[in-house]
Amino acid sequence: MHQALMTDLYELTMLAGYLREGMHQQPAAFDLYFREAPYHGSYAVFAGLQPALEYLSNLAFTDADLRYLAGLGLFSREFLDFLKEFRFHGRVTAPREGEVVFPGEPLLSVEGTLAEAQFVETTLLNIINFQTLVATKAARLTLAARGGQVIEFGLRRAQGPDGGLSVARAAAVGGVRSTSNVLAGRRFDLPVKGTHAHSWVMAFPDELSAFRAYAECFPDSSVLLVDTYDTLTSGLPNSLTVARELRAAGHELLGIRLDSGDLAYLSREARRMFDDAGFADVRIVASNELDEHVIDSIRNEGGRIDIYGVGTRLATCAGPGGGALGGVYKLVEYAGQPRMKVTSDPAKSTLPGCKRVLRVIDDNNHFVMDVLDLREGTGEAFSPGQVAYDPANSQRHKAIPLNCSIVDCRAVVMEQGRILHPAPSLEAMADYCADQLQRMPDGSLRLVNPHIYKVGISERLLKLKEQLTTHLE
Amino acid sequence: MHQALMTDLYELTMLAGYLREGMHQQPAAFDLYFREAPYHGSYAVFAGLQPALEYLSNLAFTDADLRYLAGLGLFSREFLDFLKEFRFHGRVTAPREGEVVFPGEPLLSVEGTLAEAQFVETTLLNIINFQTLVATKAARLTLAARGGQVIEFGLRRAQGPDGGLSVARAAAVGGVRSTSNVLAGRRFDLPVKGTHAHSWVMAFPDELSAFRAYAECFPDSSVLLVDTYDTLTSGLPNSLTVARELRAAGHELLGIRLDSGDLAYLSREARRMFDDAGFADVRIVASNELDEHVIDSIRNEGGRIDIYGVGTRLATCAGPGGGALGGVYKLVEYAGQPRMKVTSDPAKSTLPGCKRVLRVIDDNNHFVMDVLDLREGTGEAFSPGQVAYDPANSQRHKAIPLNCSIVDCRAVVMEQGRILHPAPSLEAMADYCADQLQRMPDGSLRLVNPHIYKVGISERLLKLKEQLTTHLE
Repeated sequence: MHQALMTDLYELTMLAGYLREGMHQQPAAFDLYFREAPYHGSYAVFAGLQPALEYLSNLAFTDADLRYLAGLGLFSREFLDFLKEFRFHGRVTAPREGEVVFPGEPLLSVEGTLAEAQFVETTLLNIINFQTLVATKAARLTLAARGGQVIEFGLRRAQGPDGGLSVARAAAVGGVRSTSNVLAGRRFDLPVKGTHAHSWVMAFPDELSAFRAYAECFPDSSVLLVDTYDTLTSGLPNSLTVARELRAAGHELLGIRLDSGDLAYLSREARRMFDDAGFADVRIVASNELDEHVIDSIRNEGGRIDIYGVGTRLATCAGPGGGALGGVYKLVEYAGQPRMKVTSDPAKSTLPGCKRVLRVIDDNNHFVMDVLDLREGTGEAFSPGQVAYDPANSQRHKAIPLNCSIVDCRAVVMEQGRILHPAPSLEAMADYCADQLQRMPDGSLRLVNPHIYKVGISERLLKLKEQLTTHLE
Repeated sequence: MHQALMTDLYELTMLAGYLREGMHQQPAAFDLYFREAPYHGSYAVFAGLQPALEYLSNLAFTDADLRYLAGLGLFSREFLDFLKEFRFHGRVTAPREGEVVFPGEPLLSVEGTLAEAQFVETTLLNIINFQTLVATKAARLTLAARGGQVIEFGLRRAQGPDGGLSVARAAAVGGVRSTSNVLAGRRFDLPVKGTHAHSWVMAFPDELSAFRAYAECFPDSSVLLVDTYDTLTSGLPNSLTVARELRAAGHELLGIRLDSGDLAYLSREARRMFDDAGFADVRIVASNELDEHVIDSIRNEGGRIDIYGVGTRLATCAGPGGGALGGVYKLVEYAGQPRMKVTSDPAKSTLPGCKRVLRVIDDNNHFVMDVLDLREGTGEAFSPGQVAYDPANSQRHKAIPLNCSIVDCRAVVMEQGRILHPAPSLEAMADYCADQLQRMPDGSLRLVNPHIYKVGISERLLKLKEQLTTHLE
């Protein structure tokens, strides 16, 4: 799935350069992080680790790859021979999939030779950027649905078949635990769900015949699409007729699907109609350009939807601040020395050195803030009682109360190119994510204008940063 | 790549229903079309036909697929046996890839048994929606660059590895004819391009050493990234030094890349600096969140950029009206009878029957408007002199001048499940697209508030629509 050539050309030209300069074996460390939380929210949900580790552990160039590269006329024989033996033997530190993560925090940290740690940049970004973006969207949808179920319906708007698979997987991490995508169901052991299309109704002489035929075929799992002609005057009455006929035959209609019109209003009408007729268990499914804001507004207006099918806006991660997670991959240590990029745009500066991502937790088990500390180095390791600094303005700082505890959000997950632990199930990742989200501070889960969760830096990281800035200026 | 199970569950449940009802062998026809042009533009560039046809011609369920489906507990043994032999033996009518297409026009029309023509809905939408959306973005970028080159840099923000491949392919159809994605270069025979990352510069003691090392390694193809520290005071002077050293050694610096700051201003400064020093051939490459609007504004301000590297906003099809192409797939004929969906939302009504998509062309060889006509049926086939009607309001109509010619924009490309013609090269598709675009009416290529290209319907299609509407009401 993730081939060695699936990368930007510049990873290869840089590798060739490092080899020529004799730098390729020097130790190096890179941090992968994003600068702004997606969707103008306060957080992201980390996802994509398992496919990323699988990519790293299988990384190798085939003979056909090498022939193609030789044909480009850019590379020396020596470099192509080097690529033939090239593998990833490095170390990866990362949070668990489903972890709540924040802007500026290293997600993956990759340590290895300069060659191996640099080369994997593009593919790691490709995997982590998109899966994290989808998982975050899924978490927002799940939170907006407040207990209602959300199903992933996005295959037809995803970027090709693998895009559809990635969407389904990452959505599950964020809490959207079922999909219409059959291959995703098989590949990731997810429940697959579906109803029928308008064309089903249109192929029959009338809507009632179409509903009856579908219900006969799936007497215990039919969800009838009620808006082909008119929801209130045709679709709902016909579906109620079928619900009665199914019950007479010893079955129950599973649900109906609304796909157009005013979903808050129509769902209340549908609920009333089915409840009055004694069908309180018929589920109401809604689709049609749903996102977290539409779901939230439906709920605020007393809509009675049980299941939300979200397609386009999940598969494309749509919305303000969506579309892409701007993850970057930056050199933070080379040949044992911390490295830092100081550019004219301060937002694009980097934090030097190998880091720990620490989470400060209060005695109610809620998250207070995160603190980036150096993994090693002079000065005391960060602990309660110490001061955390705003990385953009060290005049702003905050002492961490002594009654707080501190946990390291990440662990080494790959060592010498070997995956250390089998991946948890998607179900376990989703459970973990749900638990993390409910430990967030008040207001930080809000869909718009959330409370911004603070990520500080420790004194020793601040000092290193200041020292390198002075040196470079 | 496109497996049979890569579909929405409902395609399978409907198939099972059609089989049970004995309807599966009835002839049916579906139209795939979109309702609104992407990016608030007037047009789209059709792409994705070749992968769509490859999917159709290879469609088959494996034994493992069937075992998985059996395990879902939804399907009968009879249906699973039916799937075992299931293939696509139908007919597909389509425009050429690179064709300029408009809202409401059938792109693909699929005819076959109800079973086969219905089943392929999700996958065809998955392929055509995204490739058409990317090709359209690429055409907009290419037009905005007005002769400047555009390179696809989007892999790290694409939806997984296959998403990255789809982006590169479809971008080429729309005119973005090179990519940083090495696998896409190999797979689609596209030129691959690249520079180096900030990390290259950061791994060296200083920027000049980094530039020198890169230029030594690639003396005839180096593009130096000049913004790691400061573009004007460091990156540009150092790159000029290297340009002089390369020339002294008998080589030429290929270019420099700007990746932050005011690209219009910096590119003018860079151009002046290199021109004054006698390096008029050094190319200026720019990247950093480019899209067609940014490119347009850089050009309007006299920016001197030769090559635009577009990543995120091409791979995610970003921008107002972007993100997704809302392609749909609707039943238009069943068992020899035209079908139509008349819903309470008039925008979601469909046009019945098998159609021709006709393009009216004036004596300057420019496009005037498109007209949808029935392929067969009572009444005269559409020709100059006849009247075309606005499909939303038949009171609005227009007679086609007699000096216009009419061409059918589509052809049968698959018959009995067999691909009729080998696909043209991507280069030929891109040339065709460029030719089509320059035949569009004045103002219809404008990036914002374009002239809306008209798509009318013929009198016999209008009559059929009115007849079916009356029948259904």
